[in-house]
Amino acid sequence: VGLGPGTAEHRTAAAARAVSEAEVVIGYGPYVEQCADLLHEGQEVVRSPIGDEVVRAKQAVAEAAAGRRVALVCSGDSGVYAMASIALELAEDVDIEVEVVPGVTAALAAAAAVGAPLGHDHCSISLSDLLTPWDAIERRLRAAAEGDFVVTLYNPRSRGRDWQLPAATTILSQARPADTPVAVVTDAGRRGQETVLTTLAEFDPGIVGMTTCVVIGSSATRMVGGRMVTPRGYQS
Amino acid sequence: VGLGPGTAEHRTAAAARAVSEAEVVIGYGPYVEQCADLLHEGQEVVRSPIGDEVVRAKQAVAEAAAGRRVALVCSGDSGVYAMASIALELAEDVDIEVEVVPGVTAALAAAAAVGAPLGHDHCSISLSDLLTPWDAIERRLRAAAEGDFVVTLYNPRSRGRDWQLPAATTILSQARPADTPVAVVTDAGRRGQETVLTTLAEFDPGIVGMTTCVVIGSSATRMVGGRMVTPRGYQS
Repeated sequence: VGLGPGTAEHRTAAAARAVSEAEVVIGYGPYVEQCADLLHEGQEVVRSPIGDEVVRAKQAVAEAAAGRRVALVCSGDSGVYAMASIALELAEDVDIEVEVVPGVTAALAAAAAVGAPLGHDHCSISLSDLLTPWDAIERRLRAAAEGDFVVTLYNPRSRGRDWQLPAATTILSQARPADTPVAVVTDAGRRGQETVLTTLAEFDPGIVGMTTCVVIGSSATRMVGGRMVTPRGYQS
Repeated sequence: VGLGPGTAEHRTAAAARAVSEAEVVIGYGPYVEQCADLLHEGQEVVRSPIGDEVVRAKQAVAEAAAGRRVALVCSGDSGVYAMASIALELAEDVDIEVEVVPGVTAALAAAAAVGAPLGHDHCSISLSDLLTPWDAIERRLRAAAEGDFVVTLYNPRSRGRDWQLPAATTILSQARPADTPVAVVTDAGRRGQETVLTTLAEFDPGIVGMTTCVVIGSSATRMVGGRMVTPRGYQS
């Protein structure tokens, strides 16, 4: 179940219903808190530590196999860098029904917070090299530069993983003007959301944290009345 | 306001509130119908014909400038190939407040319907060459192939615009195995949703219509228990 970026405001009715109708709700602690308003007595609620994604998905599949109705909750969309793929893999040979409930993913929430930077072709790239070799990530960044895509960077930076973001913006800077708009959105669609609008040349990776999305414009993206906008067409 | 893919189930609370609290609701006819359950007496409701996007956005901006609370509604996410960018452009020199309300875009709804194909890096490309020259679209397709992105094709085909989709899959086929999974999702997240799972080699563009999204896997995407899944990492 994708709970959306944070507040109940950006959650869908289907996600809310999946949580309230579940007998077991499983998720990383802060994501479970994100749907605390929906939890009720009689539900088993499992708040997992960060990281343990395989454990969490296995537990969800096991509970479902035991005949219980389970909501495995994620922030954003359940299928984007999230739990749906691993849950489906683990459920492959288990006789259970799995429904993937979509949600507003971080890129969309971040985009809405700063204007409409995803108005035309765009891509999402995760800078986490925990499960993906850096050369594969670099290949994607080079292709995104070549294709002139608007780029949303997920997992741009964390403690101990800090050189990837400057490496990424360097690659994109080689293909785009210095004044290309860049949005840095922390806690998009959550309470305490912070937005910084800057340019490729002025961008300071130091302001980026674990819960930040970075959106880098294409050659068509421009600032319009203080917002970041990518027009739908080139000729309009 | 992004109403999500279709049914009220996949609409966010913020989108619903924006529509119910509006004094004027403006949108392409079928999108206004998508939020008919929220409309009430005392609201002015403008159902626009297809195409007239500039007219529609101008009208919304003019009504807001006249002091009325306006909801300019779109299907999916309001910022993805939709009305937010044009509305922000037209509002640039007008003294009004504009809020972009995100929603579940078609790619996310289509992905959820068939599994979790967007579990890792992915891009969205519109095949409509009404406002974008085909050579720019082709450049994006080649870059997506080079970067091994999962690709969601928006506006893949319409009456009189039918050669672009085979051209696109030919480009991707040159870089990906013949058995790469492809999902064809018509009316994703709407009543009457239809899904076809196939491969690049077997893909039949003839089944694709105006309200279809086509999701083409990366080299990591595979079929798992009848669903299309892109794992989060390569080494897991």
